[in-house]
Amino acid sequence: MQKTLRNELFNQAKEWVLEAGEKIREKINQPMVIDTKSNPHDLVTETDKLTEEFFANRIKEKFPNHLLLGEEGYGDEVTSLDGTVWIIDPIDGTMNFVHLKKDFAISVGIYHNGIGEIGLIYDVMANVLYSACKGEGAFKNGKRLEPLSDTVKLEESIFAFNHNLLCTSEQFDRDITENFLRNIRSARLVGAAAIDIANVAEGLINGFISKGLSPWDIAAGMVILDEVGGVTTRNDGNVVNMLEKGTIIACNEVIHNRVVKHLKNWI
Amino acid sequence: MQKTLRNELFNQAKEWVLEAGEKIREKINQPMVIDTKSNPHDLVTETDKLTEEFFANRIKEKFPNHLLLGEEGYGDEVTSLDGTVWIIDPIDGTMNFVHLKKDFAISVGIYHNGIGEIGLIYDVMANVLYSACKGEGAFKNGKRLEPLSDTVKLEESIFAFNHNLLCTSEQFDRDITENFLRNIRSARLVGAAAIDIANVAEGLINGFISKGLSPWDIAAGMVILDEVGGVTTRNDGNVVNMLEKGTIIACNEVIHNRVVKHLKNWI
Repeated sequence: MQKTLRNELFNQAKEWVLEAGEKIREKINQPMVIDTKSNPHDLVTETDKLTEEFFANRIKEKFPNHLLLGEEGYGDEVTSLDGTVWIIDPIDGTMNFVHLKKDFAISVGIYHNGIGEIGLIYDVMANVLYSACKGEGAFKNGKRLEPLSDTVKLEESIFAFNHNLLCTSEQFDRDITENFLRNIRSARLVGAAAIDIANVAEGLINGFISKGLSPWDIAAGMVILDEVGGVTTRNDGNVVNMLEKGTIIACNEVIHNRVVKHLKNWI
Repeated sequence: MQKTLRNELFNQAKEWVLEAGEKIREKINQPMVIDTKSNPHDLVTETDKLTEEFFANRIKEKFPNHLLLGEEGYGDEVTSLDGTVWIIDPIDGTMNFVHLKKDFAISVGIYHNGIGEIGLIYDVMANVLYSACKGEGAFKNGKRLEPLSDTVKLEESIFAFNHNLLCTSEQFDRDITENFLRNIRSARLVGAAAIDIANVAEGLINGFISKGLSPWDIAAGMVILDEVGGVTTRNDGNVVNMLEKGTIIACNEVIHNRVVKHLKNWI
């Protein structure tokens, strides 16, 4: 994608993200209509839907040739990444939105012919915007993020991951997770993938791992993390397929090989 | 303790807490001298020590009859809670202090003849002060915290606890933790006990559980949580002994019995 076009798109996307965030903040203390999706803990609210609809309408009006791949179903049936695709989670971390009323984000990744061009992660209540355009560095509220440390050791690193990954499961081997935890310094969890990845990009933590992530959970974070020298792959080290759910490692490049060695047989 | 004396003590403690926090913020981006204590992940910095020394000196000068029970050894040999005892963690969440440079707190509890009279938890980088005087309510930056919900269900609650509690251990039964996790909605972790308890008091999460907590990790939080109708006990439901390490449940009173039922045999 041409730089001028990318910058124009970036400015438009940023404007919409901030506008959507403002709308969410205005209603944060009003009663919420909460539904569940795949299970009783998979929450969705009216605000998730209205926010995605807001983006769907704006994109359709201003960029009728662009596609939207979104969490709540207001987008298109996206079966290939040809052309320009907006990959959006209107509220990443809905459980935090409902319970904590903070620590959730609007996540917008814009991909062109499969390449991540723009990433925007807006921590709505903290009013913190992480952003990146491909090749131009990553920023937190306009301040450039430093490249990630090239000296970090796995043994001294902190990872974000869900406690469930240490529970008995037919889907993966918890002993692998436990062994991994014993090889790092500690684990934390914000509970919104986009913010957890942004924290990796900022160098606050050194990695994020998760099972069953959807493209909208990681699309923006991948672009931002890439700009500071981080990497995002499947747990076996393979390239992420942005049209599928999957297990994700997003981390500092220096330790990535060792993380893959720990988790590649995680089935 | 008389109310006027308690208020005088509170104002003095608050002034020192804010002053100590200001000193920490001024040095947050300077290189840190980091040591380890009981294990390679049990960190301590010069700042932990200097901050405790700051309190030790101030208390000795202004309240020579008071005792200090502190994490870093600048306090007294406290073998009973007779009289007035300041129970202080100069930096609760030292690992966050070192790695994230945020999400750590100064925690000050003041106990008189064993009764928690004053609690102060200062989230230094967020500049958020949680405070309480016994019987006078709890506050966040001066704004009164609401009483905790009396309708919360265990199945819809969020708890903070360390990922390690789901690992194989000789010290406790991980199956109990796993079963507990399956009975709540989700788990989170800030990784600073005082802040995790403050989040319970604010109603953002519904409980906090931890093994091996020291008095300074919980002394302030217990006073604050008590003021909004929360409870802090051992995992078997028994009263906390403020002179010992132990396993702690700090949570909404409505669900406390069920949490104890889950965790009481956690040995």
